[in-house]
This record gives sequence, structure tokens and C-alpha cells, in this order.
Amino acid sequence: MRCEVVAVGTELLLGQIIDTNSAWLGEQLALAGIDRTHGQTVGDNLDRIVGALELALSRADAVIVCGGLGPTQDDITRDAIAAVMGVPLEADDDVADRILERFAARGRRMPANNMRQAMVPRGATAISDPQPGTAPGLICPVGDKVVYAVPGVPSELHEIVRGAVLPDLARRAGSVAVISSRTLRTWGDSESGLAERLAEHMRELDEAGPAAPTLAFLASGIEGLKVRITVKADDEATAAQRIDAEEKLVRDLLGDIVFATDGDTMEHVVAEMLTSRGLTLAVAESLTGGLVASRLVNVPGASDWFRGGVVSYAPEVKFTVLDVPEGPVVSAGTAVAMAAGVRSLLGADVGLGVTGVAGPDALDGEPPGTVHLAVVVGDDEPVTVRVMLPGGRETVRQLACISLLDLLRRTLRGRRGDTPRGWPLA
Amino acid sequence: MRCEVVAVGTELLLGQIIDTNSAWLGEQLALAGIDRTHGQTVGDNLDRIVGALELALSRADAVIVCGGLGPTQDDITRDAIAAVMGVPLEADDDVADRILERFAARGRRMPANNMRQAMVPRGATAISDPQPGTAPGLICPVGDKVVYAVPGVPSELHEIVRGAVLPDLARRAGSVAVISSRTLRTWGDSESGLAERLAEHMRELDEAGPAAPTLAFLASGIEGLKVRITVKADDEATAAQRIDAEEKLVRDLLGDIVFATDGDTMEHVVAEMLTSRGLTLAVAESLTGGLVASRLVNVPGASDWFRGGVVSYAPEVKFTVLDVPEGPVVSAGTAVAMAAGVRSLLGADVGLGVTGVAGPDALDGEPPGTVHLAVVVGDDEPVTVRVMLPGGRETVRQLACISLLDLLRRTLRGRRGDTPRGWPLA
Repeated sequence: MRCEVVAVGTELLLGQIIDTNSAWLGEQLALAGIDRTHGQTVGDNLDRIVGALELALSRADAVIVCGGLGPTQDDITRDAIAAVMGVPLEADDDVADRILERFAARGRRMPANNMRQAMVPRGATAISDPQPGTAPGLICPVGDKVVYAVPGVPSELHEIVRGAVLPDLARRAGSVAVISSRTLRTWGDSESGLAERLAEHMRELDEAGPAAPTLAFLASGIEGLKVRITVKADDEATAAQRIDAEEKLVRDLLGDIVFATDGDTMEHVVAEMLTSRGLTLAVAESLTGGLVASRLVNVPGASDWFRGGVVSYAPEVKFTVLDVPEGPVVSAGTAVAMAAGVRSLLGADVGLGVTGVAGPDALDGEPPGTVHLAVVVGDDEPVTVRVMLPGGRETVRQLACISLLDLLRRTLRGRRGDTPRGWPLA
Repeated sequence: MRCEVVAVGTELLLGQIIDTNSAWLGEQLALAGIDRTHGQTVGDNLDRIVGALELALSRADAVIVCGGLGPTQDDITRDAIAAVMGVPLEADDDVADRILERFAARGRRMPANNMRQAMVPRGATAISDPQPGTAPGLICPVGDKVVYAVPGVPSELHEIVRGAVLPDLARRAGSVAVISSRTLRTWGDSESGLAERLAEHMRELDEAGPAAPTLAFLASGIEGLKVRITVKADDEATAAQRIDAEEKLVRDLLGDIVFATDGDTMEHVVAEMLTSRGLTLAVAESLTGGLVASRLVNVPGASDWFRGGVVSYAPEVKFTVLDVPEGPVVSAGTAVAMAAGVRSLLGADVGLGVTGVAGPDALDGEPPGTVHLAVVVGDDEPVTVRVMLPGGRETVRQLACISLLDLLRRTLRGRRGDTPRGWPLA
């Protein structure tokens, strides 16, 4: 089963919008075990959309065309599909009713243009719209193949594809093998370090042939270094079994640098640890300038455990607000004093401190990338590490953020003193 | 002159990477006045890359193929171009020398694979590489058309395209008209409000025909609402003159909601105002959780004027650390007390305060999107506004951030009390 994605929109060609929909669709198709060999982008031009759809249908079993379903004169995806099918557009009464209801419910007059959205190629089926009365999706049979038309607004696209397109594709694919993926997120080793830890196992998988699980690495900055496991099987149950077994093998080889699976972030992991232990948190930041705090408040329910933070960017703020002893501010002692100071000032159980050199210039005699991290839990002995982080200012800040939260994770697991591998450590 | 972009990489089709290169190239081509009617994406497969290049050459004068120039077996863009040209690959001695030098300089052994990067289709020219010894770009004539091969790493791509590809395209295009663009960034009115302010002028431009300047709008969240002016002319000097004249007209119609042009952010604008006035700044944040501070420290030289901030996420932190009087925390009084409190605590000239409801639930009886902003400059009367911001948690935080900095901008300009239009204000 092969499916092609066609993205429609002159604004995509002009670079006014980055096409995130094609990548999202690619991931969904890959996870569903459906091959995708090509992608196309075309502007809002009837002949070119028709040409792109015909080309896609010549080499794929199904086509997802994304965008151009709105109410304006520019939105001509429906017309192009009708041309490819060789049928006229006809008003769909159900869709028309829903559009009228939407405007009536808001007490607004409906611009005549909006009725364009109720036009459906003869023989096609409108997918009932997730947001009543907005651009509905279409399922359009073309011989024994199919064109799905989906809106370009990501939230509507996701809902229509998950709810209607993927299930329809699965039905058409019939006995397609199930392909299942899981991503392990790691922190504390470099990409080459990860590859080294897994080299022998990957060689074994390679020798076991094409039916064996596959592993891939992806560096994602503040999101960690990801290891993606992919397995194939004849059915869901076997796929789940195989992926569980492979995850266990990989976790045994990687140890505790694995901090989460799939969409879970480092913030979610430490949030859960703090919540389950009934601990509150405060953060003192220097070079990260509020980045750590702004990531933490993105976790739903953060107000249960996050007290707040101090961005002590100027050295005097460290001395006067956080009671840091005067001296060089890029040091382990300063990181610990910041963590202890913010913990006490904000009345939290746990304090974090981070100070360092984002670059491009050295500071206190330390080169760019030097970062001191500290965690203070209650009256326990403070935990501190020094890391050397690669990259420019923005990268150093991102990596400092996840490194600090990872130190908190390790400390709460009772593994203090266990420092990350993969960077030179003092 | 028409140019097509072909993006190569199986990871793009699988959605493991979002294709930002095609959008960037699209913008560069549009700015250079070169048409782009189609985009293609293919995986690391020789036949498919050849097919994509042949299709692109059949409908465009030039093709930029992006990615697949690295040293591994997967990197086969060179082979595909050679096949399209009908010529063999030959070692380029200059490129080979640079690769050898790079490894020698680092005292590292060169893996044999790396010599693949020195292979060039006969008749093609290697673009000298910006990072010596890494994937060089290629200029490959195909009849009277041309294929440019450029690396997929964005920084290398940008350098090679700006330095070699765009100039070569301009030479080939010959007497193409100069197309020049300028973006005005605005804050304080909605997209439809902007359209309304400019409606009559845009009608006039429309009637003046295709040679007249064109205007386009783009909403960019924390980056503001952008108005892009594009003009055409026979030469650079005339283009510059026309764009200056049009900018003046648009600025007259929009007034002081225009805060910057092109790449300048709101942070840069307030940084310059603070620096020129010799003022230092401190920020107290509640719902934005450090986002404002983390944006401010991205401005080069922020340490000259940014003292730091307090993230007073828990209400008690507002009361105990910032001396906010106890009471409902989503209020103008709290925003002002936060601004005054952080100004005094951190010893700054100017204090900012922001408190509100990010959602999804109401807080203190206020609906999601309610945000109070405050600016306190020295002993002046505090300035505060209440805005109602649209969108989910993340959008409300982003819009609160730029709204707060815009209030600072207006206050420093001596226009206090002048509140943003476009949202319901209390």
C-alpha cells in the first residue's frame, strides 16, 4: 500500500509558511505501515493541482491532498478533484445545513462564498467536520484508488486524518503488516556514545534480516537524544509483544540514561516525581534566563508543585536576592548557593541552580559552554556537576536546561553523584 | 525564469524532520523575483531522485536539489545528477585535497567513505565549501538549464545559496526585474483591523495595475503581525526608492503600531530604547513563567540593561517575595505591585509585571485569556492595561509576552495610557 501527500498553497511555495503537515502525515503513514515514496507541493492553480493529483495517482494507491478547502476563490482543491474524477461538483445538503447552522448559532450573516464549502464532487463522501460547519474533509474514489482531501489547519487536519482517513486507509490496505514504533528518550550520553553502546546489538539485528526490529537515532536538543525502535508484525498483538521485548533489550543496554518514552518530556518526568513525592520546586537561573521555568509551567498542573523562580542575570542580583557569597559567578559554589537561596526565598522543598557561560565570550576565565548545575533537596548534601556543552548561545541554553532537569531526576532517584557521561566533566 | 526545489531524504518522507529548507529557498527565490510553481520531496532512492530531477527540468529553467551530498552510502544525489546529465562521476582534485586537509588538521584518520564527497559529475563545477572539506555544492549544466546541488544542513545551505546559487541564477536570468521586499512588524491591532486600516490604500494599489507595490499580512505570534511590502523595478536603485516611498505611506496609515522592520524583534526594540536612555530592567512574571525573561536574554548585550526577574507562579511568592498585597492575583493592582516589587528587589530603573489566566480554567473569576500588564518607570505613575488574548495556553503566553514588551515600548515613548486596539479592553 502506497500513499502520496500533495500539499496545496502558494504561501508554501513562497516560504511564508513552513509545511509541518506533510511531516506529520509522513509520520502517521509510517506508523501505519503505509509506504510514502514522494511528496509534492503546488500553488493555488487549477491545472497544476490537477497535474499533481494525476501524477500521484499514477504511482500510489491513495493520495492525501492537504489545503485549499476554505471558502475563498483561491480554494480550488474541490474543483481539481472533480476534474480528475471527471465529474461535476454538487451541493451536499448535510454540509450546507451545518454551515448555515454555524452562522445562525452565532447570529451572523453568512457570506455567500461559504456555500462553496458545501460543494462535493459527485460520488465523493464528505467527512463529517470536527468543528461543525468548517471545511469538511472528502473521500473521493478514483477507479480502485482514492483521493482524500483534508484541511490545511493542523488541528482540523489531525482530527480528520486520525478519525476518518487512517481508518479508511487501513480498511483498503486489508492485510497490510502492522508497523509499530516506540521512541526512548535519553540524556547523558552523546549520539556516538549511544551508537557505541548499541553497536553489537544493532549488528545482531542486522544479521537477523529484514523481519528484525530496527533502531534509529535522532538528536532533538532540549527534547533529548531519541532512540526509535520500529517493528513489523502480522497483527497488533504480535507487534506490541515484539516492541516490548526490544524495548527491554535496549533499556538493559542503555541503563538509566533513558528518561521517558514517546511524547513524554523531561519536564513531565520530573513533574511526576515531584508530585508523587509531595515536593515543591523553585529555580534560580543565570545563563538560561528563565528558560527552565518557562518549560516547567508548560506541564499541566504545574501550580501543584512549582513555586516559581528567580532569574539572577546580573551578578548583584545573585548576591543581594539569593544570598550568594560574592566572587566568581561561574562556579559550583555559586550554583549551589543559588539553589539553596531560591529554595529558602520561595519556600520550596527543592531548589535548582544553574550558572555558566552561554558565549560567545569567556566569563570568569571559563570558556563558552561551561555550565555549573546544582540541586538542593531539603537539608540533604547539595548535588552539583559541571558540564561542557557544545554549540552556540541558544544550543548551550537548551542543553543546560535539560541537563539541569536530568540532574534533578537522578537526584530524586537517589543516585546523586552519578554524573552524565559524554561530556568532559570536572 | 522559473526554479524548482527538490528535497531529498527518506527522513523527510517519514516525518522525522520537518522540511524548513524548502520554505527558506522559496522565500529567497520569491525575493529574487524567480517563480516557483512546484515542490518535490523524494527519498534516498536513485531512480526516484532521477525521476524527480527530470520532471523538474521539464517544467523549470533551474532546479535546486537539497540534501543527499554527505559521505555515506545513502547520499546519492551526485549519482542521480550524473545519470540525468548522462556523464560519469570523476574525482575533483581540489575538493579531495580540501577533505584530506580537514582530517589532517584535526589529526584524524579519514574514513574512505569521505572521498565520495570529492566525486563530481563530468562538466559540473564544485562550489567551494564554506566549511572547508564538508559537502560542497555543485553547479551542473543540463543543456541550457541547470541543476544546483546544495547540502541539507541549513547553515551550509544558506551560505552556499546566498554566496553562489542566487548570484548564478541572477546571471542566468539576465535582465529580470529586481523584486525587493520589506516587512513592517506591528503590534496592537488584529489582522482584520490592519486590513481595515489599509483597505482603501490596497484598493488604490490594485487599480494601479501589476507594476504597483503589493501588500501581504502574516500573523507570527510572539513576533507580531507582519505587513510585507513588495515592489518591482528595473534596477536596485529604483526598487529601493519605491519601497521607501511605499513604507512611508503604510507607516502613515498604521501609525505607532509599527514597532520594527524586517528581522528586528520587539526585544531588540525595547533593548535599544533602554540602552539609549541608560535604564535597567527587571521583570515579574506569573502566567508567562519566565518566557519574557528568556526572550530578553537572547538580545546580544542584554547584560548591560537586564537585571533579571522573578517568576512568581505561586500566589504566596507574589505576597512574600514581591510584597504584593494579599487578594485576587488576576488584577491590575497585582500587576502593578509585581512590577514595583521586582523593580525594588532587583534594584532596576524599570519594572514589568504580568499576571493573568493562561487557561484552560478560569481563575479569580476571570476567563482564560485575561491578562493584566504593568510598567513602572522610576517614581512615575504606574501604567497598566488589561487585554483579552485569544488561543490556547501557549498562544496566550506568547501574546502576553509581546503585549507586555509593547506596553514598555509605548511607555518609554511617553505615550502611556495609549492602549492596544483590537482586543476588548476593560
